[in-house]
Amino acid sequence: HNSPPTSLFYFNTFISSATNYTLATYLRHLTLHPHLAGTTPSLHTALYVKSHFQSLNLQTHVTNYTVLLSYPLISSVILHFPNGSVLSLALDEPGFSSSGVVKPYHAYSPSGSAYGKPCFLNFGREKDYIALGTNGVNVKGCVGIVRRGGGLSRNEMVEKAAARGVEAVLMFTEGEFEGGVERGTVMSGLGDPLSPGWGGVENGEKLRIDDPLVMQRFPSIHSLPISMKSAEIILKSLEGPEMPYEWRKSLRCSTSGRLGPGPIMINFTYQGEKKMATVHNVFAVIRGSQEPDRFVLLGNHRDAWTYGAVDPNSGTAALLDIARRYALLMRLGWNPRRTIILCSWDAEEFGMIGSTEWVEQNLVNLGSKSVAYLNVDCAVQGPGFFPSTTPQFDNLLTEITKKVNDPDSEGMTLYERWTAANRGIKIQRLSGVDSDFAPFLHHAGVPSVDLYYGRDFPVYHTAFDSYNWMVNFGDPFFQRHVAVTGVWGLLALRLAEDPILPFNYLPYAAELQDYTHILSKLLEGRNISLHPITAATQELAAAAKETLGEAKKLKEDKATDEHTALKRRILNDQLMFAERGFLDAEGLQGRPWFKHMVYGPRNDGESELDFFPGIANAISKLSGGGEQNAAIQHEIWRTARAIQRAAHALKGELIT
Amino acid sequence: HNSPPTSLFYFNTFISSATNYTLATYLRHLTLHPHLAGTTPSLHTALYVKSHFQSLNLQTHVTNYTVLLSYPLISSVILHFPNGSVLSLALDEPGFSSSGVVKPYHAYSPSGSAYGKPCFLNFGREKDYIALGTNGVNVKGCVGIVRRGGGLSRNEMVEKAAARGVEAVLMFTEGEFEGGVERGTVMSGLGDPLSPGWGGVENGEKLRIDDPLVMQRFPSIHSLPISMKSAEIILKSLEGPEMPYEWRKSLRCSTSGRLGPGPIMINFTYQGEKKMATVHNVFAVIRGSQEPDRFVLLGNHRDAWTYGAVDPNSGTAALLDIARRYALLMRLGWNPRRTIILCSWDAEEFGMIGSTEWVEQNLVNLGSKSVAYLNVDCAVQGPGFFPSTTPQFDNLLTEITKKVNDPDSEGMTLYERWTAANRGIKIQRLSGVDSDFAPFLHHAGVPSVDLYYGRDFPVYHTAFDSYNWMVNFGDPFFQRHVAVTGVWGLLALRLAEDPILPFNYLPYAAELQDYTHILSKLLEGRNISLHPITAATQELAAAAKETLGEAKKLKEDKATDEHTALKRRILNDQLMFAERGFLDAEGLQGRPWFKHMVYGPRNDGESELDFFPGIANAISKLSGGGEQNAAIQHEIWRTARAIQRAAHALKGELIT
Ligand SMILES: [Ca+2]
Ligand SMILES: [Ca+2]
Ligand SMILES: [Zn+2]
Ligand SMILES: [Zn+2]
Ligand SMILES: [Zn+2]
Ligand SMILES: [Zn+2]
Repeated sequence: HNSPPTSLFYFNTFISSATNYTLATYLRHLTLHPHLAGTTPSLHTALYVKSHFQSLNLQTHVTNYTVLLSYPLISSVILHFPNGSVLSLALDEPGFSSSGVVKPYHAYSPSGSAYGKPCFLNFGREKDYIALGTNGVNVKGCVGIVRRGGGLSRNEMVEKAAARGVEAVLMFTEGEFEGGVERGTVMSGLGDPLSPGWGGVENGEKLRIDDPLVMQRFPSIHSLPISMKSAEIILKSLEGPEMPYEWRKSLRCSTSGRLGPGPIMINFTYQGEKKMATVHNVFAVIRGSQEPDRFVLLGNHRDAWTYGAVDPNSGTAALLDIARRYALLMRLGWNPRRTIILCSWDAEEFGMIGSTEWVEQNLVNLGSKSVAYLNVDCAVQGPGFFPSTTPQFDNLLTEITKKVNDPDSEGMTLYERWTAANRGIKIQRLSGVDSDFAPFLHHAGVPSVDLYYGRDFPVYHTAFDSYNWMVNFGDPFFQRHVAVTGVWGLLALRLAEDPILPFNYLPYAAELQDYTHILSKLLEGRNISLHPITAATQELAAAAKETLGEAKKLKEDKATDEHTALKRRILNDQLMFAERGFLDAEGLQGRPWFKHMVYGPRNDGESELDFFPGIANAISKLSGGGEQNAAIQHEIWRTARAIQRAAHALKGELIT
Repeated sequence: HNSPPTSLFYFNTFISSATNYTLATYLRHLTLHPHLAGTTPSLHTALYVKSHFQSLNLQTHVTNYTVLLSYPLISSVILHFPNGSVLSLALDEPGFSSSGVVKPYHAYSPSGSAYGKPCFLNFGREKDYIALGTNGVNVKGCVGIVRRGGGLSRNEMVEKAAARGVEAVLMFTEGEFEGGVERGTVMSGLGDPLSPGWGGVENGEKLRIDDPLVMQRFPSIHSLPISMKSAEIILKSLEGPEMPYEWRKSLRCSTSGRLGPGPIMINFTYQGEKKMATVHNVFAVIRGSQEPDRFVLLGNHRDAWTYGAVDPNSGTAALLDIARRYALLMRLGWNPRRTIILCSWDAEEFGMIGSTEWVEQNLVNLGSKSVAYLNVDCAVQGPGFFPSTTPQFDNLLTEITKKVNDPDSEGMTLYERWTAANRGIKIQRLSGVDSDFAPFLHHAGVPSVDLYYGRDFPVYHTAFDSYNWMVNFGDPFFQRHVAVTGVWGLLALRLAEDPILPFNYLPYAAELQDYTHILSKLLEGRNISLHPITAATQELAAAAKETLGEAKKLKEDKATDEHTALKRRILNDQLMFAERGFLDAEGLQGRPWFKHMVYGPRNDGESELDFFPGIANAISKLSGGGEQNAAIQHEIWRTARAIQRAAHALKGELIT
């Protein structure tokens, strides 16, 4: 007889259809030219992705937004030595001056000139300024030299320097790769600065560029990234007090061991232009057969600072390969139960602009209908599996790693190697605002995943992030690409196919319990109660257990009548809406766009807490005393209510 | 053969089971004693409702909240005439001094004393103060005498007086009924002042009573309601400039025709206490058989300033009769497709406290699962049918009025008499914040209905709002009660039973178009574009048409397989979520709790616009000039985006 293939058949077919040469081919195409958002070569990558989707007969769409981007015009850094000699720093990367690669810059930096003594600011954190003060260094009027890696965003580093009277900032990254320079955005917040909070659609409202709401997104002083080599020239010239021992010990570049300021003078000029440019999100939609109104979203950005072989097009290659393999399943007769959408975002590098505009535009339907957002940015940076998820994915992700071969050890599953490397299951969480999951999770409350192979790669945001680097260092045989693609594609398949959504909220409750323990140690001796969070977490755990029981029952029930169909849908709705409960309509104090009370950015990048951002912010405010305790307690209440809302949503019943 | 009864059979049985004597009996019981929220007799009404539900074998629940209420202790108003004579005004209502009826007061008025000259402030509106100024009257230091009825809430009247230096306010209502005095709350905003924005549950966060967020809810000067008779004594004593002609013409009480201040002096003392009290919401839940997670809510408050025969227990009687009749249907085998919840709210009179706390507590499930909230407050105030709805109910409501007999004309349907009286269908909208629909619609975006028979009754909030008044004047034969009960109960039945939700969004789009026309006239000659709203409204109309087509198809499809079941559910979700699109997470400027951009309160009760509150507020701000145009345009954008979100939700598809 001839019964239709099962989901399992399609899962297996998906796995067995993996090929590394397709991935390599896609990556080669995508990285032929630098493709900075808003430029013509970038449009060409959009068209490439579009035509790939179309050639597979997938329903393909492109949404455009015209947004404010930022490009460099002129930059110069001239050192004036006490002996009268003058040195103009090389700001381009060696060999790339006429390559079409954009010169190193900070997007949205204001234009400006500064003439002052250099001074080393370490990572530019609060405690670094305190140390400078202790050492008698006055940074006012200086050109600040800072190194990346202290947990602050570029914007935070520049703004903290500006707040102390620093005139301009030169930023470098340790871990030299042939003179590469790390580009990046210094805009705060997400999305087009001209449409804060709403989708910046054509014919939609746009703020004027001089609107205070727009201007506050940009730093008040200019900055530029420089190579480590350039930084060393300056750092070796510094005199003045000695660097603190810890700074010297951790520095991986040569210095005079002094803090400055001076004695040399730096003349630093930057001119850039902010201009309207069109960005392109490309979508392939595989419409669900039973529940077309439930969305499983796979997303990756496509724009790159330079060639983007790692960041982000290793992920784009994976996305295109998933499209190829899903199309293959469709030719075999498959249609997912729920709708799958492959999303190729633009202008992530400028501040998650493509994804944020789309999320803002679609907020009401995403909020009520999306099951999961699965992000892959730099799919492959090197060896090792580094997944981040909201915790209801933990079990599903773990299961799936058992179905995928480890790329670096013959005969082992990804699961075996991953758990061996970490002595257990190690899944990171998603408080960072560093890729396109941020609008989905932090603003819309969609359960999210972010997958990486490898971490910290030396060519990050430099001209050396090229196909060459990938085949020489990152993933010579594209096996790591195959592994990420397998995990990503299988995750989506399970989420789109399983009659009962494969979410388990017990790990979420356990995680919240861990957070509460950490917090309780931190707050020891203060007159603050964590009981509201403990109680809410217990409610969540109880609801989680209940849904697991109900899921078990419904999985065994194969009936296809209306009543059973609705029972499944009802349970799935509970599982889907629970995450939304963590959102608070008011959002974080001072950053109301961020609505998630468990995962989200801290105002103080130095905070030890990478969860409960409202509480973390209240703790890091330096007010102190009973007033601060009250503020912390209020944020504990807000967080507890969010957890309780999640529990209510998971339970699915009104309190009567 | 023996097929199960159809929905239609149950609808007909519901109609034929109407009896007026049950309604009369319930009302008699409920109004035996005054039952102000927070008092023992009020608890007894909760127990009465509870035991009624239980005796019908309905699943019955009580939720309690301990909230800040307010009661009077001492009040005196002493007039000092220039000739030395002294008169202490009678502040109680004649015959009720030892009845257990609370003495007339303004809930949440601060305690205080004032000694000053009286001055007539008319309705206490901006334009009234302008007129006073024109006439050379300085109200500073006066005791203000104001009359109700100018469109401002009590709180607004007192606050506007305070802002002009008035020391205290005496408020009266024209249309004398035997010396009755209109009680009321002067708190701004909704819900328990100690838990703004969140459910004030036991063991939950409570602000301190001296928290600025709490204090700002109360007026800064004290006030008291007085009888028209008392007001006349004062108004007849006034000298000074003549009242404007319009004021005199419209006054329905005797005066000297003068504005004051003085020459008499008033010594006015009020002392009240704010104290924690427990309030009780009572629920009966009829669990849906197919879609238990879809809620049709019928709500009515139970607490009263005095006996509450009209306000609100005519509605409570209707609710209890609906319970009786639904229970009858259940004994015949009926179970609704969706869950029906009968809600009896407490402490509405103090500021919609019972309903608001419950909505805040259940926000996440109400937002994702409630189909409709059907409110009845003063079910019967007199003759004539006065329904208010959000516009997607228009067609359903009209249909239902054809199934219900008119209570005042033998042989006519409610529809015939109603449309004859209004030369067509006349349905009001719900921008007012005057009953328990407000938290559901303005905060949670639940499609809402509010039904009245009669309008403006003379015993409003006085000791004369008794069973006696009802049988003498309001509804001697309880036929109007029967009519309201019929409409209310049938609305809920259709919403709970129809496989496809009986919502039509075309009237919503038409209504928005009308609003836009009114607005465009108002803004004529200004450099402001209404195009964003026009375009969004067109999108809504197009989506409305589409859903009607889809509904027609699905109504004809009687299949009961999983696929068809999900198709119905998907369309219903679109119809349910569309209203939620009108919500804006930021809410109205300065009043962020109010999230609905089409219906909600204006900051300026005098605005001509009773829709688009964000726009109305921007218009009534007196800033003027280009800056004001920009502010209005921004609110137009916000409103347009809300309408577009509703269109997107109704369409149910992501923009890709
Ligand atoms: Ca935007
Ligand atoms: Ca509250
Ligand atoms: Zn990236
Ligand atoms: Zn990047
Ligand atoms: Zn009422
Ligand atoms: Zn009332």
